Amino acid sequence: MINFKALFEITYGLYIVCSGDKRRGNGFISNTVFQVTSEPAKFAVCCSKNNFTCEFIEKYAHFSVSVLVKNTEPEIFGRFGFKSGKDFNKLEGMNVKFGMTGTPIVLNDSLAYLECNVVQKFDVGTHWLFVGELIDAQILDETNEPLTYSYYRQIKKGIAPKNAPTYIDKSRLDRKMESSK
Amino acid sequence: MINFKALFEITYGLYIVCSGDKRRGNGFISNTVFQVTSEPAKFAVCCSKNNFTCEFIEKYAHFSVSVLVKNTEPEIFGRFGFKSGKDFNKLEGMNVKFGMTGTPIVLNDSLAYLECNVVQKFDVGTHWLFVGELIDAQILDETNEPLTYSYYRQIKKGIAPKNAPTYIDKSRLDRKMESSK
Repeated sequence: MINFKALFEITYGLYIVCSGDKRRGNGFISNTVFQVTSEPAKFAVCCSKNNFTCEFIEKYAHFSVSVLVKNTEPEIFGRFGFKSGKDFNKLEGMNVKFGMTGTPIVLNDSLAYLECNVVQKFDVGTHWLFVGELIDAQILDETNEPLTYSYYRQIKKGIAPKNAPTYIDKSRLDRKMESSK
Repeated sequence: MINFKALFEITYGLYIVCSGDKRRGNGFISNTVFQVTSEPAKFAVCCSKNNFTCEFIEKYAHFSVSVLVKNTEPEIFGRFGFKSGKDFNKLEGMNVKFGMTGTPIVLNDSLAYLECNVVQKFDVGTHWLFVGELIDAQILDETNEPLTYSYYRQIKKGIAPKNAPTYIDKSRLDRKMESSK
């Protein structure tokens, strides 16, 4: 039987992935941002098909990744992780820079960012895997550490929203606990 | 100009990815293992096309992921990260379990493992992205922490081999340092 608790041993960071333009953009909290090639530098981002930001990435073919700092304000998770940009403009009132492509880049609680042009898109079922070629990368704060999913979960007692690739229904964890008694 | 140092702010774990059978198998050190969907649980693994383990994953269509512990012995990195299985059998003398698919699973310095059946394979240039459906996951050691790429790099002074998706040529880091003087 699969012990779903073992999945918590896979290490992730936490990021805000954004797309759009100056007029309208959207972003979501992602833990699945990873480099897939070095020459050229390309990054994969995994995004639920139900996610409003998906529509922006598809339309604009670019995205930004803001690397969240260890002590990111809870408000950031509320705004970008648990609310839909269909209902309000998540970027309003935020400290946003527009990248070389015009894509919005959230600077709040971020220590670095990447900007990518989408070059491939793969269907992995409930999610799209967008692969983007890196066109810009900057450090915003050298003194801070990046937030990890493990720290967010264990220390900040944060949970994953249902659209996250790493979402695990609580009943699955409980079931395993029952069976291992 | 891209500041390649910003790429070190992306968080990764470190793993041994293996494939093969009882007769012959091979494994390599990977930092790009990510869950891509939750229903069903599927994982992506990024593997250089020059990597000998690629041939095994393609032939057998399954792989295992061993999650390395924080204080993994340097010998593990030498054996699985910087040598090719074309020259010798990396699994010889190791503590190996064979999974439900028959795939080898390295237990040395590992605190958990996953086993997956390959369901998709994407060409991202110099690397393949294999997507596997999870068929087994177990915890081996609940008392230990997983090794992160950042800890390996900063504390253990470890480097990435040339086949790693996150490999950065030293001249690129120096160039940036020159230009930011």
